[in-house]
Amino acid sequence: MKESAARRRTVALRERLRGMRLDTLWIIQPENRRYLSGFKATDGQLTESSGSLLINEKGSYLITDSRYTTEAKKEAVGFEVITIKKGFNESLPGLLSQMGTRNLGFEENHVTWALHQELAKRLRSLSPPIRLTPLKGLVEKMREVKDRTEVKTMEAAADLMSEVLEEVIRTLKPGRTEREIAWQIEGLARKEGADGLAFPSIVASGPNSALPHAVPTNRKIRSREPITFDVGLKLDGYCCDMTRTIFLDGAGPTFRKIYRTVRLAQLAALEVIRPGTESTVPDAAARRVIKDAGFGDYFGHSLGHGVGLATHEGPRLGPEKPVELKEGMVVTDEPGIYIPGKGGVRLEEMVLVQKGGPRILTKDRHFYDF
Amino acid sequence: MKESAARRRTVALRERLRGMRLDTLWIIQPENRRYLSGFKATDGQLTESSGSLLINEKGSYLITDSRYTTEAKKEAVGFEVITIKKGFNESLPGLLSQMGTRNLGFEENHVTWALHQELAKRLRSLSPPIRLTPLKGLVEKMREVKDRTEVKTMEAAADLMSEVLEEVIRTLKPGRTEREIAWQIEGLARKEGADGLAFPSIVASGPNSALPHAVPTNRKIRSREPITFDVGLKLDGYCCDMTRTIFLDGAGPTFRKIYRTVRLAQLAALEVIRPGTESTVPDAAARRVIKDAGFGDYFGHSLGHGVGLATHEGPRLGPEKPVELKEGMVVTDEPGIYIPGKGGVRLEEMVLVQKGGPRILTKDRHFYDF
Repeated sequence: MKESAARRRTVALRERLRGMRLDTLWIIQPENRRYLSGFKATDGQLTESSGSLLINEKGSYLITDSRYTTEAKKEAVGFEVITIKKGFNESLPGLLSQMGTRNLGFEENHVTWALHQELAKRLRSLSPPIRLTPLKGLVEKMREVKDRTEVKTMEAAADLMSEVLEEVIRTLKPGRTEREIAWQIEGLARKEGADGLAFPSIVASGPNSALPHAVPTNRKIRSREPITFDVGLKLDGYCCDMTRTIFLDGAGPTFRKIYRTVRLAQLAALEVIRPGTESTVPDAAARRVIKDAGFGDYFGHSLGHGVGLATHEGPRLGPEKPVELKEGMVVTDEPGIYIPGKGGVRLEEMVLVQKGGPRILTKDRHFYDF
Repeated sequence: MKESAARRRTVALRERLRGMRLDTLWIIQPENRRYLSGFKATDGQLTESSGSLLINEKGSYLITDSRYTTEAKKEAVGFEVITIKKGFNESLPGLLSQMGTRNLGFEENHVTWALHQELAKRLRSLSPPIRLTPLKGLVEKMREVKDRTEVKTMEAAADLMSEVLEEVIRTLKPGRTEREIAWQIEGLARKEGADGLAFPSIVASGPNSALPHAVPTNRKIRSREPITFDVGLKLDGYCCDMTRTIFLDGAGPTFRKIYRTVRLAQLAALEVIRPGTESTVPDAAARRVIKDAGFGDYFGHSLGHGVGLATHEGPRLGPEKPVELKEGMVVTDEPGIYIPGKGGVRLEEMVLVQKGGPRILTKDRHFYDF
């Protein structure tokens, strides 16, 4: 991570801190941690943290244990690395007392009930005691608007994904299984230098394409049936997310109509994705097209979501909870029509919200002119 | 999952329930969920659950949404699948009221502070109100002791891993990078039918082998340096975990001594792993050997851990918090010596605790007679 970006983010965070009744922030969520510090470690499981950030008006600290000290010192920009020898719960109260903390903000959606409970007990018994204040998506909110370097990285991730998909579609043949194809995608992504996949690839053929979250099976793909690829990779920590539905040797009239409808719905949403629009507007635009074509009952999910260090982040583009779209947000536009037992079509672009209309980051053009 | 296993587990759980002041259990942790119901879905991220179990004296229910209904009905054994249309927080109170719940047990290490907070508020306002009671590792405790089918599955996973490692070591050559080798491992594991890896492979060569949690790099492996493989795959949901340290063309006197010490420490621990022993005893036995050889400062982590549906589960084999080892537990025995900047050696077996001495499930025999 560049020093300037790290500094900018910490400064922005401190500014927000000033308006709140807490004096120190405690960050454990891995993507939030990486966004602020550059520390790349992930957490094996919920109960195995590889580190925490503590940020107050005066300093920025990365608390970790000996397993991660070397990496933390190399990766974290502008953070003092503190290696603890005992458990986190045992060590944190003393550190906070030294920092003069009186009110600690914690991530309410990432701290478990048990961890909060134990820590609250320990912090209450200090003198002076330290209070715990829940924070709802403070850093997540900052992450929604990307800076230039982040957009560039995500565009590079999407370019790589497009190249991989190009190669996969070029070599697609009836008789290959969904699993084999999913594995080919992962292999190519790694070979081309991706950190790994952003999420397990969906390769769903025939009736399986009617399941929005299908897991690849041993089913062999066939001609003239929908084959949906919902794929993404990570590059330098950032995700891309894209979906194409492909037909080998064309499609029958029903799926041609479904495809055309989904594509028109996607384009209708694209038309209204811009700074200042409410997040419900693109969803409504796409949904209207699908409903008018008579498929209203077969589009069950939301239109899209933000993408960044996580595959799914804010803002959500759905029918509820409107928020304002801002310049620099990166969101997906992914309508779908799913006919149970028959099959489905989903098309997904990842776009940058900007004035004058969104910039499409997923440049692959495998679209049909049905 | 076999119906008999599912029934046995639910019966055992209900028996435990009877001794507690709660009447209904709420299970969201993915491995706990799978253990009890057979439902295989994982959760993308903490805030995106693919389902919950509710179990009381009379019934067993799997609450999920339309994305997972089909899989849930196919996979879950002995559970009635309920598809909710609204969010979990909105739907749960009504369901619980219908079930006559008065006191709901929740997994304190898997429910976030925010989720607990919102749910508690909703449940308090019901009439009659429903209380929330924290549960600490109830199902995790049951999972520690494996049944015959589980042991068989884990042995098959370990056999597959041994085959893969055999092939990797056979084709090992100076000049290949850690990353290439890690990728080869993953490819072979998938090709041989594994669900996937149990955790990202560690392939750590030369000085990198001094980092217990090394991430594979572009470093090229060389002759006469330690190369540590800490690898595991999943088969039918169950993990295996094994570590070997390899030298191409032999090792110098220092690493020969280190290797010999680690191997003797591992064997010393194996000697005392049996039903009725406290979990601190094997760790102490291994630690004693390493200390006596003068490497006491270079073995920082615990000796081992339980393995099952999760790579890391109970019991922990460390210097603290003794628990009694029981017949049917599957644990690792993995001492290591790590010399910063130089390199390290770790050897790990996964073994079944049984009378008359442990059964080694990791049958690969790449050990040196230094």
